[in-house]
Formats: sequence, structure tokens, C-alpha cells
Amino acid sequence: MTDQDYFVHPAGLCDSKMIGAGTRVWAFAHILPGARIGRDCNICDHVFIENDVMLGNRVTVKSGVQLWDGIRIGDDVFIGPNATFTNDPFPRSKCYPERFAVTVVENGASIGANATILPGLTIGRRAMVGAGAVVTRQVPPNAIVAGNPAQIIGYHDDSESSRSRFSRLSALEASRMAFDGLPELTVRGCALVLLPIFNDLRGDLMVAEFEKHLPFVPKRVFFVYHVPNDRVRGEHAHHECTQLLVALNGALSVVMDDGVRRQEVRLDTPEVGLLIPPLVWGIQYRFSADAVLAVFASTPYEATEYIREYNQFLIAVQGSG
Amino acid sequence: MTDQDYFVHPAGLCDSKMIGAGTRVWAFAHILPGARIGRDCNICDHVFIENDVMLGNRVTVKSGVQLWDGIRIGDDVFIGPNATFTNDPFPRSKCYPERFAVTVVENGASIGANATILPGLTIGRRAMVGAGAVVTRQVPPNAIVAGNPAQIIGYHDDSESSRSRFSRLSALEASRMAFDGLPELTVRGCALVLLPIFNDLRGDLMVAEFEKHLPFVPKRVFFVYHVPNDRVRGEHAHHECTQLLVALNGALSVVMDDGVRRQEVRLDTPEVGLLIPPLVWGIQYRFSADAVLAVFASTPYEATEYIREYNQFLIAVQGSG
Amino acid sequence: MTDQDYFVHPAGLCDSKMIGAGTRVWAFAHILPGARIGRDCNICDHVFIENDVMLGNRVTVKSGVQLWDGIRIGDDVFIGPNATFTNDPFPRSKCYPERFAVTVVENGASIGANATILPGLTIGRRAMVGAGAVVTRQVPPNAIVAGNPAQIIGYHDDSESSRSRFSRLSALEASRMAFDGLPELTVRGCALVLLPIFNDLRGDLMVAEFEKHLPFVPKRVFFVYHVPNDRVRGEHAHHECTQLLVALNGALSVVMDDGVRRQEVRLDTPEVGLLIPPLVWGIQYRFSADAVLAVFASTPYEATEYIREYNQFLIAVQGSG
Amino acid sequence: MTDQDYFVHPAGLCDSKMIGAGTRVWAFAHILPGARIGRDCNICDHVFIENDVMLGNRVTVKSGVQLWDGIRIGDDVFIGPNATFTNDPFPRSKCYPERFAVTVVENGASIGANATILPGLTIGRRAMVGAGAVVTRQVPPNAIVAGNPAQIIGYHDDSESSRSRFSRLSALEASRMAFDGLPELTVRGCALVLLPIFNDLRGDLMVAEFEKHLPFVPKRVFFVYHVPNDRVRGEHAHHECTQLLVALNGALSVVMDDGVRRQEVRLDTPEVGLLIPPLVWGIQYRFSADAVLAVFASTPYEATEYIREYNQFLIAVQGSG
Amino acid sequence: MTDQDYFVHPAGLCDSKMIGAGTRVWAFAHILPGARIGRDCNICDHVFIENDVMLGNRVTVKSGVQLWDGIRIGDDVFIGPNATFTNDPFPRSKCYPERFAVTVVENGASIGANATILPGLTIGRRAMVGAGAVVTRQVPPNAIVAGNPAQIIGYHDDSESSRSRFSRLSALEASRMAFDGLPELTVRGCALVLLPIFNDLRGDLMVAEFEKHLPFVPKRVFFVYHVPNDRVRGEHAHHECTQLLVALNGALSVVMDDGVRRQEVRLDTPEVGLLIPPLVWGIQYRFSADAVLAVFASTPYEATEYIREYNQFLIAVQGSG
Amino acid sequence: MTDQDYFVHPAGLCDSKMIGAGTRVWAFAHILPGARIGRDCNICDHVFIENDVMLGNRVTVKSGVQLWDGIRIGDDVFIGPNATFTNDPFPRSKCYPERFAVTVVENGASIGANATILPGLTIGRRAMVGAGAVVTRQVPPNAIVAGNPAQIIGYHDDSESSRSRFSRLSALEASRMAFDGLPELTVRGCALVLLPIFNDLRGDLMVAEFEKHLPFVPKRVFFVYHVPNDRVRGEHAHHECTQLLVALNGALSVVMDDGVRRQEVRLDTPEVGLLIPPLVWGIQYRFSADAVLAVFASTPYEATEYIREYNQFLIAVQGSG
Repeated sequence: MTDQDYFVHPAGLCDSKMIGAGTRVWAFAHILPGARIGRDCNICDHVFIENDVMLGNRVTVKSGVQLWDGIRIGDDVFIGPNATFTNDPFPRSKCYPERFAVTVVENGASIGANATILPGLTIGRRAMVGAGAVVTRQVPPNAIVAGNPAQIIGYHDDSESSRSRFSRLSALEASRMAFDGLPELTVRGCALVLLPIFNDLRGDLMVAEFEKHLPFVPKRVFFVYHVPNDRVRGEHAHHECTQLLVALNGALSVVMDDGVRRQEVRLDTPEVGLLIPPLVWGIQYRFSADAVLAVFASTPYEATEYIREYNQFLIAVQGSG
Repeated sequence: MTDQDYFVHPAGLCDSKMIGAGTRVWAFAHILPGARIGRDCNICDHVFIENDVMLGNRVTVKSGVQLWDGIRIGDDVFIGPNATFTNDPFPRSKCYPERFAVTVVENGASIGANATILPGLTIGRRAMVGAGAVVTRQVPPNAIVAGNPAQIIGYHDDSESSRSRFSRLSALEASRMAFDGLPELTVRGCALVLLPIFNDLRGDLMVAEFEKHLPFVPKRVFFVYHVPNDRVRGEHAHHECTQLLVALNGALSVVMDDGVRRQEVRLDTPEVGLLIPPLVWGIQYRFSADAVLAVFASTPYEATEYIREYNQFLIAVQGSG
Repeated sequence: MTDQDYFVHPAGLCDSKMIGAGTRVWAFAHILPGARIGRDCNICDHVFIENDVMLGNRVTVKSGVQLWDGIRIGDDVFIGPNATFTNDPFPRSKCYPERFAVTVVENGASIGANATILPGLTIGRRAMVGAGAVVTRQVPPNAIVAGNPAQIIGYHDDSESSRSRFSRLSALEASRMAFDGLPELTVRGCALVLLPIFNDLRGDLMVAEFEKHLPFVPKRVFFVYHVPNDRVRGEHAHHECTQLLVALNGALSVVMDDGVRRQEVRLDTPEVGLLIPPLVWGIQYRFSADAVLAVFASTPYEATEYIREYNQFLIAVQGSG
Repeated sequence: MTDQDYFVHPAGLCDSKMIGAGTRVWAFAHILPGARIGRDCNICDHVFIENDVMLGNRVTVKSGVQLWDGIRIGDDVFIGPNATFTNDPFPRSKCYPERFAVTVVENGASIGANATILPGLTIGRRAMVGAGAVVTRQVPPNAIVAGNPAQIIGYHDDSESSRSRFSRLSALEASRMAFDGLPELTVRGCALVLLPIFNDLRGDLMVAEFEKHLPFVPKRVFFVYHVPNDRVRGEHAHHECTQLLVALNGALSVVMDDGVRRQEVRLDTPEVGLLIPPLVWGIQYRFSADAVLAVFASTPYEATEYIREYNQFLIAVQGSG
Repeated sequence: MTDQDYFVHPAGLCDSKMIGAGTRVWAFAHILPGARIGRDCNICDHVFIENDVMLGNRVTVKSGVQLWDGIRIGDDVFIGPNATFTNDPFPRSKCYPERFAVTVVENGASIGANATILPGLTIGRRAMVGAGAVVTRQVPPNAIVAGNPAQIIGYHDDSESSRSRFSRLSALEASRMAFDGLPELTVRGCALVLLPIFNDLRGDLMVAEFEKHLPFVPKRVFFVYHVPNDRVRGEHAHHECTQLLVALNGALSVVMDDGVRRQEVRLDTPEVGLLIPPLVWGIQYRFSADAVLAVFASTPYEATEYIREYNQFLIAVQGSG
Repeated sequence: MTDQDYFVHPAGLCDSKMIGAGTRVWAFAHILPGARIGRDCNICDHVFIENDVMLGNRVTVKSGVQLWDGIRIGDDVFIGPNATFTNDPFPRSKCYPERFAVTVVENGASIGANATILPGLTIGRRAMVGAGAVVTRQVPPNAIVAGNPAQIIGYHDDSESSRSRFSRLSALEASRMAFDGLPELTVRGCALVLLPIFNDLRGDLMVAEFEKHLPFVPKRVFFVYHVPNDRVRGEHAHHECTQLLVALNGALSVVMDDGVRRQEVRLDTPEVGLLIPPLVWGIQYRFSADAVLAVFASTPYEATEYIREYNQFLIAVQGSG
């Protein structure tokens, strides 16, 4: 035991040799021979890890957690105490599926205490699953989920700790309070755009003259509506296309992410549009029941223009940097 | 009395001499000396007409009607029995306003039996006030109003008698039933336009690519929403501008009028837009509570481009014919 | 003027000779030559009656009323002051329909003061049109209508004056308050029937065992639902069929009429059914939005079994008496 | 005709001699012998007046009106054209009630054109019935009613013509806009009183400490709630009692009247109470569905303390003046 | 250890000798001396089993589970990781109830990962408790429950894996899409029955003539309504009685089970009834708020006719086979 | 083992010496050296306790529980199996907060099986957290919480086991059913008080004359409204002030606690007020959306008059006893 550069408590059982340097395995933990565990991990008391399991580096697994065959854990993941994984959607005793569902927890994600993860899901990069949540659907990168069943309640912005008023801006408040112009956004190239609204007795009227009111001449417009409240749209970036988003009715939240900074805006008035340049990842969610979103686009539709995988987006951003 | 070319029943009292040829005044009717009445009118029993009153030609005034000082009646107007006019909004006995409110009934209009018209209103050209209605606001040309207080319940189309299914077309039904294309419209230059809609689990999506899906490249768009159900919008024509109207949410009705033919369409789906060329009078009304209307315009905004008086519109159309 | 047995005021104009004995025509009234008027009528000041008009006996026409070509008035009808009739649904000056719409006011009906009657309608036997009502649909026999547009607000029961609590019985109240059995009904053969209801925590349960709980063995059942609140159903009697009506959900009102007595019951609980024997005229109305009515019938459906005209019903009842 | 000091048009029929000086009776009007009519009245064409009818002085009766037995008209009343009275709630031809219902129109009231007045009602002093209204209930003094059935839509304040923002004050707006204190009221002794409200996350809180926040120490409090929207409360004054009214929930309107000036306030916030001293007539109406009104009173309840007739109130005020 | 025919990991503690052949007890598991465990069970790491506990054969108990005194587990049960049992509804430290509540998990049931089971409940035969569920009420045989608190979200049909569209049939869709007749059901003797519906302007009408439209002559009818959405009804079979179920209003789901095959139908139209023969287990659930269910029965009510225990039903079916 | 007066199972690991007499530590439990544990505790299998942890006397910690640094457990606390604590609101692997959040579980509280407690909360004296609850906010003394997120569903009254109808009294039912007077309350000095209500057609009216209807002459009144349904108000006692609570609109629940007995009343009618004397702890919760609560107080407001800590209240009561 002197040769190995990882630690196993005398009351722990570690049957695997594929354990990275600096990793510690504590009392009453049990690791089966096939498991592969990275460096500087912390495997707490009463953890159980099966054979077909892979953990990255710097992973924390708190007490009372089991990692079953088919679970893949990235780097820097935190798994809270008694968080519970599964690998069979309809388990019956002694009935084994041909192949266990694979659960993936991507780099930097965090699974809250006593959360339950249904089989076959991916928890995206730096996503956060709240304590006690029961996760029944994919969790996108950076999303925060909670509840039973779990729903997205927010997205991380730059500074998790300082949930400043500015970082979750309401467009309506912005238009009312900023006498010296709309506040600037922190995500590269994004901006709030004032649109002209006229109120008359016969109904409100929003007019956008393309060459006068919009920051670019649109080639295309589309409208999004009837979005269930618990759904997320967007979740992609564009190579070339600039977009202007306007909430014609109701409200929705937009998360912008340039690969370095993240920010969230609540579009809750037709008076203020949100300009999103190419190579900014955009997410639309928390649609009110009556939300109607207009999106003006600077280019015609081209399928190859879309970047739909967040990891590919990060690569594209770095290439462009 | 032999010289006059109009008829007064022996039991009628006609103190005015300004009565057109062919006009008949019946028993127990009473016309004061200052009244001016056109040709071929029919003034029935028990009608009373004050001094400062003008009637055009071919007017019918049924029994029990009084026409007070300040009332102006155009040509070809029908006034039903016991229909009641007023000329003082807050009448008190022996208190007279400095000047009586002027009521105008334009050419071709029809006032239903026992209707009540509040003071100072204009009943537009060929409008129709339903029997028993209490009219408290202006009535636009061609509108049909009913109720207490009266609200617009429709507009005349070409053939009053044959209210054909086609003439009050639902865009939604049209898009569902016309396998061989959308039905053609009868008003000059107007057309229904199919727009692409995609349904996915995350909400409906309507996309309009300007050079592909729209019949012209728009220079401007505006959105109308929060229109109270009893309000009417539009009521104008354009000299140069072509428009495409799309109901993104909810529903509304559009009346088109080229000066010769009229037609009404219910826009109740984002799948079908309505194209309105220049020199077509347009009216939007019967907005549902959640209606959001998008209007794409072929020209930038210019105030002089609008024709806001229906009579001027008719002149413009004839000049252009 | 001494020969005639009817009276015309010196300031009245009566051009017709077809006037029944005892009828009086008052000042400033005007009757055209073709009108036919029965005995003992009262034609008040300022009334106007055209040619193609027929009035029965004992009719009262109060001041300010006009009766146009095409109007048929039965016996014992009351027409209140300024009540207004029409005979053209879309009147335009100098445009005459090929044939005027015929309006019929049946025996014993009463038209309230200043009411408006749209063209082509029938006001049924002993119906009552409220003052100021604007009548746009047929009015069934004995119905009371009011409002703009007019809706049925009740039916006459036996004693118009004494609107006793008993005569408009709520089934729910009856089942709660009558410790000594349900109250007896006054219409021949009709009865309230207690039905067994069980309440358990999982929902209410109504059971009808045919040979035990129902007063007859049904051959047929039908259900009525989704009835708009302003509609009336039933309005017929049966030659042979006995019916049991139960409000499974919501509430509705039933008027029973045996040709002599009338009574109204509010069915507002599934605990109490209403038994209606043959040769009782039944009307169902004032359905709540969620009303579901079950009707158990003692005979299979046979079209000839129905009596759909109230006048024929009265004949059938007398024949059976 | 030289002897009499009133005028009758040659085509008018005036069978009564009880006509006041200066009164004019116009063509085709007909007045039966028993009618009594005051001075300086104007009886227009086509009016009919029965026997048991009394009119005060300076009354205007426009064309097409009938005044039946049992109608009592005060001084300075205006009756618009074709306004229609009734005197039998369930008229049937040839069936006469033992006694006709009595309709009273008090001094200064105004009946709009083509309005309908059901039998047996009183139209209060200076009340105004809107054109086309169908009046089915008593109309209090100074009330304005409209619609079918007619509902109170307002009360007159001092100056009918200038409906200034101030005269129909919203308490909520007053509390928000008046940095220099609440606006003063014009009715004698009435005042708005600021009450302390605290908002915390757990619900709003209104506190009234009797010796600190209230202008008097209450001896009694009562609460009014569940008031149907079309009902009117209050309509009385007190000899001795001072009251403070607070809308704890919802909103209501209060009319104050000191016999000389009238003013209306909308109580729509618990932050502002309304102080009403003795000998001010108060009316509460337009209750929202959820309105809860608290009334603090300076004296215990005593029935004789209430003045319930507006005319007696006017006498009391003058006595106290 | 050679004598015993079950396996205990060296790091496991098994103080009981009542362990069936083939059972394996893994590391850090602890079994107290009184526990009785059947054959071929799998007791995973970190499981704790008290004394008064009984397990059947082929039971799987995953890691992190405790089985307390009073728990009874049948054969073939699966208990997911960290699933948590209780045996005291109001636990206080050092306060022991006289007798611990007994929890029963019947044969073939499955408890999802991290589920919580409140004390004193029975989890029925082959029921499935979803991962993360908090179970607060009895779970019927074959039911699937999920959520906090857990509610029934479905019932197993024949093939858990293939949730075919057919197996959860909507009656409304069936009536619309099947031009060649309604689809056949797979459960013995069950059938969909077309019922005649008439739509007229005054409301829909469903007529059932007993000898013409129903497959049997009913002796009894009952109606079920006001069923809370989270309640389950039925859950029984009949020895002799045939039933026809019709959703008169709203919708509900019916599970049929002949002991061999199971199928679920959504009754969502009054046009289609569901015939259920004797000796078919029926469950009604997922009632919409406005559901009104009519049940026609071929026999009068007799209490002994009902089979209310699913196990007895299985015996009865086999006896009848 | 003879020297120490606490028990550690041979398969347990107890690295701390600060363990009270009579405490037992069971198999596979692991206690780090810094932990301090009181007397007569029971630390079950698979429990893990870190260093900076303190437990009082007679605490039960069931299997699968971890107690992290910063957790403080009082006397007589019960912690159910797999109940899960946390100490970092946004955990990320290898990122440690400067100081862990402190969680306090006060004396006598009970944490249900598999509950999750978010960091930094206090679970009040004798509160009860339901099995499976996810606790995200403070839990007041004696409160019962359940659900995800956990909400207060009740408060303990005297006898947990016998939830008698009397102990959760509805004021409305009490006023209807008690012919011989309102039921007496068990909490010292508390009483129901009948208040006079008058129903008239114009709205309900509740009158309280201070010297006649109230048990004391109030010096102050306050009104509480707009309370979100999941909020709790009150939670304090008074040194001197007597209060009368009346639900003017809607309903709310009040818990009274004299330090010895507890009782809950539902105030759901304005007819019955609740009198609470000094030195009774009061809690108001379960407000309906439209609840308006009036509180009459016998003394003016004085901040020092309030006792806001339950523990201080218990001291004050004992001092006064």
C-alpha cells in the first residue's frame, strides 16, 4: 500500500487499481474492481461504486451515494450526500435489461443532496441539480433545476454568489428607470434596443421601420408562441446571423453566453428588443402562457448556420477569438 | 296649393315651402317653416320636423320620428318608426345649451325602428343602426351596430342579402379546406397568402423569409395588441403602401373595400396572411382579447401616405380607375 | 256616422269600414282603408294602421304604435305605448322587399311599452314581452321575455300575481326541508321522486335501479348537455310516453303545463327526479353551463308520439279530458 | 282664446281647463279634461295626457310622450321625446288593475329620449335617466342611470358640465400624487384622512390606533361586504354621528352632499379614509366584488339618529344653517 | 461457512440464520438475528435489516435501504437504492408506539430509487413506485405512482415496454378514425359500443334506446360525478353483472383486466360506451373535474356480487377458466 | 470497553471521546474525533458524523444519516433514516465556502425519513418535518411541514394522536351547530364571541358596538389582507394586550398556545370572533386568497409589549404562572 499514491481508509474496500493520484477513499466505502477513478477525488464514507463506472479528476462523492454500471462522471463534479442514481427505468427484481441506461454528468456539474436522477439522462456542463430534486429530463449546460419533477428555475450567470439586480435585468424596468439610455450588457455584442411604441385608445401599436429602428436590415422574421411554461427553446448559437428578439406579448427570459460571460434578461415589454450577435449562445425559457416572441434575423435560414452543441460552440468561440 | 309639386295630406301640417318635388307629407305630420327637405322624400304620419333641419333626396321618415334643430340627413336615408334623436346631452327643462349638438346621418344610412341616437354623433355612409339600438358613439361607414349601448357587430359586404360563407371567410378554415389553394378574394388586389408553420413539442413556430415567403420585401413591420374587443382599428387606405396582415395570436376580422366591392375575412391563424394593396380601404375589428396582429408594410412610414376619410378614399379610387 | 256601431273620435281618421262593433278609434289615430279590426278594440291616440293588417277582438293598441303591412294580431292582445313593429330586416330608403315579413302576435299576448319587435317573428299565445325589450327571436307561448336582446326570463304559472315560493320550487330545497315527504305538484300527474344518492370520499354516486327506484321501467334514456344558457329545450308533450327527468350535473328549470295549471321546478340536485306523464306540456330552460340532464322514457322513440305545437296540445288535452 | 293665459295650437286638443299661465300646448297634442298642468310648461306635438295626471311648473314634455293615469310630475322636469311611461306591470288587454301604479318624477329630474319607465317607480330629485334606458328600480335623487336594465352610472356633482378630475377623486391616486398633503374636499366638513399601512412580505397591514390615527374616538364599527355591484348603500345622513369610511379590500365610490355642494370619491385603498361629519348626505355605490368597507362611528347606534329621506335632509340642513 | 448455502461478504454482518439458499449478503450490510429472508435474494452493500422483518424469494434490496421491524416483503420485489421505509407516523426520539405500523410490499412490486414509503401502507401486487416518489396512501395492484405526494399516473398494461397507441385508446379518437368500425379490445369480452348522438343548435343530445342501442337490457343505472382528480374508483369485478360505461360529460380512464391481459381506455366522448363483462377487474381513474359517468348494469344491486380483493378476483378467474 | 459508559458496536468507528453516558453507536457508523454527543443517544448503522457537530441528550439518529460540520442538534431530537443535511447552498467540487452554513434542530424536533434540509435553516422546537419533505425555509416551533418545497400543513395541538373534531374547530360550523352557545376553548382565556350580522338585499353588514358587543373596549384596530397562502403571520404573544380577531372576508386558521395547551380554530365567518388574552402565543396561517382579518386590541401599540421568541414566551408564561 506504500507504493500507491492514493489513500484508502483501513475500513474502506477498494478492489480497483485504476485510482488516480491524490484520491482518497474513506471508511465503509466500497469500490468494485472495474471502476476507473481520476486524480484528487474524494470518495466519502458509505459510498458504493460498481464496475462499469468512470470518474474524472477532482470529483467529490459524498456519503450514501451509489454509482452503478453505466454512469459516467466528468471532471470537477460534486455529488451531494444520499444523491441517488438509477440505471433501469422499469426495474423488476431479477429482470435485467440488455444494456443499462447510461447517465452522464458533465464537467463541473453539481448534484444536490438527496437528489434522484432517472436513468439515461445527461446533466450538462456546470449545471446544478438542487437538493431533493427528482430529475426526469435532460439538464442543459449551466441550468439550475429543482423540484419533483425537476424544472429549470434559472441559469448561472457570471458570478454565482453576487446575484446582482443587474445580471437578471427586466427589460421593462430598464426602459422605465434608465433616463440616460438603456443599461449596457456584459455579454459580447449583445445590446438592448429601444423600439417605438404608441399607445392610443384603440390598442397599443409597436412599429419597427427596418432602416430606422432596427440595428440591421432583417432578411427573415419568425414568431414563437404557445410555448409551455416548462419548456426551453433556443439553446444554440449562429455562425453568421444576428438576431433581434422582441416580446410582443407576455414575457420570456433570455440567457446570453459568449463563452466567457453569461447574462440573463427578462423580455417583458415590446418597447425593448434584445440584439444577439453571431457566436453568442442563446437560451429562451420561462415563457409566460401568452408570450409571443418575434425574432428578426439578418440572414435567410440555412441549417448549417446553426451551432447546436454547446461544446462545439465553445470550440467555435475560441477559434474566433 | 295646385302649383306645388309635392303632396301634403289634408290632416298634415307643412309650414315650410322648401320641399322638393315628389315629396309626400302624411297625416298628423308637422313640419316647421325653416325645415329644408329634398325631392322624393316620404314623411309619414306623426312625424315632427323642427326648423334647423335639412333632409336630402329620397329620404324615408317613418311614423313617430322627430327631427330636432341641428339634425342633418343625407340622401337615401331610411329612418325607422319611433327612432328617436336628441340634441342635448344633459337636458334640463328650460335650460338651453348655447348651441345644439349637430347630428349627421350620411348618405344611404339606415336607422332601425325605435333606435335612440345620442346627440352630436355621425352615422356614416350606408351604416345600419339595428332596431332598438342605443347609439352612444360614432358609427363608421358601412358598419352595422346593435345593442344598448350599441356596438359594431359587422360590416356590409357586397350582397347584403346573400351572406355567403365565402364573403365572411375564416382564414383557418380556408387553410384547412382548400386543397387546391386558398380561395380567391373578390376585392381588387387582395389575396390570402400561405405562411409556413412548424409545430414542435416546444411551441409553435411561424417563419417568414422575406424574399421567399412574402409577396413583397417589407420595409417596416408593426404589431397591434391589447385592443379592447369593442374597438375598431384601421379605417384607412394607403396611396402607395402594400400591407400583409398576420394574426400571430388570437383572432381579428378585417374588412376590405375597393370602393366597389367589400369583403370580410376572419384572421384566426398565423398560417394565412392577408395581402392588402394600395387604395383598398381596410378596417380591423372584433379583436379577441389575446389578439396580436403583425402588419408588414412595403414602404416606410409617411403620414401623407394615409387616406383617413372614407369620402376622400372614394374620390381617390375613382381618380385612379 | 249614426249607423255604425263603432266609435271614431272627431280628430281621428278611419278610412276602413271593416271595424267591429264596440271598437273605439281615438284622436289623431289613422287607419288605412284595407285594415280589418275586430270587435271591442281600443285604438288609442296617435296610432297608425296600414292596409294589410288584421286585428282580432278585444285588442288594445296604446298610443304611438304603428301596425305595418304584414302584421297579424290575435284576440285579447295588449300592445303597450310606443311599442314598435318592423317588417323589413335590412331597410333601405325606397328599396322594398318583394314581400314584407309577417309578424304574428297570438291570442292573449302582451307587448310591453316601448318594446321593439324585429320582423318575421311570432309572439306566442299569452306570452309577455317586457317593457323596453328588443325581441330578436320567436317568443314561445306563455314565455316572459325582457332585455336587449330579449331573453326568456320566466314562464307564467297559474297565478301571475302570487309568485309563491311553492310555485317555483327548487328540488334541492325540497329534498332538504320536507321531512314528511316531497311537496306535491299541482300539475296533473307530475311528481317529484326521491332518488338514492351515496356520498363517499371518492365522489358522489347516484344509483337508479329500474324496478325499485323508478316509477316505471324505462325503455329509453337520453342525455342533454352543452345547452347554451339562453336556449330553451323541450317545448312539447307526448301522447303516450312518461318521462323522468334528473339533473345529473348543474341545474335547469322545467315548466309543466297540463292545459289548466302551470308550474315551474328548478332541478338542481341529482337526488330528486321529476316525473312528467303523457299529455303534459314540458319546457326546459335556464340550463347552467355544466348541466347534464338525464331523461328516462317509458316508450321507445316514435316521431308521431310528439306533440310539438302548443295549440295542438291544447286540443289533445281537451279531447282527453 | 283671449281670456286664457295659456296657448293651444289650433291643431291641438286641450280638454282640460286646469292649465297654468304661460303653458303652451302644440299641434296634435291631446290633453284629457281631468289633467292638471302648472305654469310655463311646454307640451309638444303628439303628446297625450290622460285625466289623473298632475304636472308641476316649467315642465317640458317632448313629442311622442304619453302620461297615463297615476303619473305625478314635479316642477322643472324634462321628459325627452318618445320617453314611455307605464302603469300596469302585467298588462293584459281589457284587464284593469284595481288601482294603477303611481309613478312619481320629482322636481328637476330629467327623463332621456326614448327611455322606458316601469310602473310604480319614483325618479328622484334632479336624477337623470339616460336616453334609451329601461328603468326597473327606484332612481335615487341626483343619480344618473343608463342601460337596459338601467343601472346607476354616476351621481351629479356640483358642476355637471366640468367633470373635473378633482371632482371624482380616486383615494389611491390622491395618496400617491399629493406630496403636500391630501387634496381638500369641497363638501362641508368632509376630509380625506391618511391611515398608516405597512407592507411586509407576509401580507399588508393597516393599523388604526384610535386616539392617534383617527379624528375621533369611535364608539362603534361596522363592516359591509358582499354588496352586489348594482346595489346602492348608505343614502342617508346623520344628525349627530361622525363617520370614517375605509375600503379594506376592493373599492367603492362615495358621494357626499351637504345640501349645497356634491362630490364623489373613489375609495380604492386602505391607506386613505373618508371622514363624513353629521348632516352630510352620503351614498355608497359601485362596490367591487371583493369590497370590504369599514365604517367607524362616533356614536352608538340609535335609529332616530338617521335621516333617510333626502327631502327631510334638505330641511334639516337648512334648519342647521 | 461451507455448510450454509447462502453467501455473506466478509465485510458483511449477518446475525440471522433464517436465510434462504442462493441468497447473497454484501459488504457493510447488516442483518439482525430475527430477520427471515427467502431464497435467491440479493442484499446489497450498506443495507440494514432489523429483526421483525420477512422477505420472500428472489427479492432485490439495493444499497442504502433499511428494512425496519414490521415490514413484510413478498416474492420478486425490487427495492431501489436509498428507498426509505418508516414505521412510525409521528416519530419522537425515545417515544415508541405500542406496536409499529406494518408495511406490506406485495409480490412483484417495485420501489423506485430514493422513494419514501410512509408507515402502515400496502404496495399492491406488481405496483411500481417511481424514483423519488413520497408514498402517502395505499398503492393498488399494478398501479404506477410518482410525485410528492405520490399519485397514480397509470396502470400497467400487457406489455410494459411497448406503450402502443392502441393499448391506451381514446374513445373519441377511436370514433373519429375507425371508418371500418371501432377497434377491438384485447381484454376478454370487453368492447367499445357506438351510441347515437345528435347535435342541434340547442345542445347535444345522446339517446340510448335500451333494446336497440345497448348490448343488453339494463336493470339499473348509476351515475358517478364530483370525483376528485386524484381519486380512483371501481377497483372491483362482478360475478354476474355486465356493465356499460359512458362518459356523459368530461373524461375518465378505465383499466380492464381479465387476469391475463390488461388494457386502458380513455372515455372522452358520450358517443362511445365501454362494455365490461363479468369477471373482468375494472378500475376508473383520472376523472376530469367535470366528468359524469353513467354505468348501465345488467343486474340489480347485490352486495355479494362484488369481488373487491384483487387476489380473490384472480382466484375467481382461474376457477372460471 | 468496561471503562467507558457508552457503547460502540465492534463494526462501528468512534474516533471521538466526547460521548455521553448511555449512548450507543452501531455497526458501520463513523464518528470523527471532534464530534460532541450527549447522553442516551442512539447512533444507528451507517451514520456518519463529522467533527464540528454537537448533539444534545436522548437524540436518535437513524441509519443513512450524515451530520456535517456546522450542524447543531438539541435534546430529544429524532432524525429519520436517510434524512439528508447540507451545509453549502451552491456546492462545487473542491470549492469550500469560508464558513459552512449552520443548521440548528431545536429540542424535541423530528426530521422525517428521507427529508432534505437545505443549509442554514433552523428547525424549531418540537416541529415535525414530514417524510420526504425538502425544507427550504425556517420551520417555526411546533409546525408540521411536508412537500417539495415543504410548506406548513398544520401545527401540533395538545394531543397529537387524537385529532379530535373539536381541536380544529370551524367557527362557521360552531355558530351553526351550537344551539346552547358556542363551544368552549381549551386554551387559557381564549373564547369564541358571537357578533351580530345582518343580511339585507344590499349586502351583508357586521356591526360591532364597542361597549355592547365586544368583551373589551378597543384602543386600536388593524386589518391584515393580501397574505400569500403559504405565509404565516402572528407568531407572537403579548404581555398586556387582549385581542379580538374577526375574519371579515375569506378564512384563516389561528393556533393558540398557552404554553401548556394548544388549539387551532378556523375563522371562516364574520359572525364569530376569537378572543385571545395576554400571554397566549398566537399564530395565523392558511389565509384564503381573499381573507381580510380585523384585529381589535385593548391597548395602543407598544413595541416592548410583544414577545416574539417562543422560548422567551415559555419563560414569561412560567413566570406568570
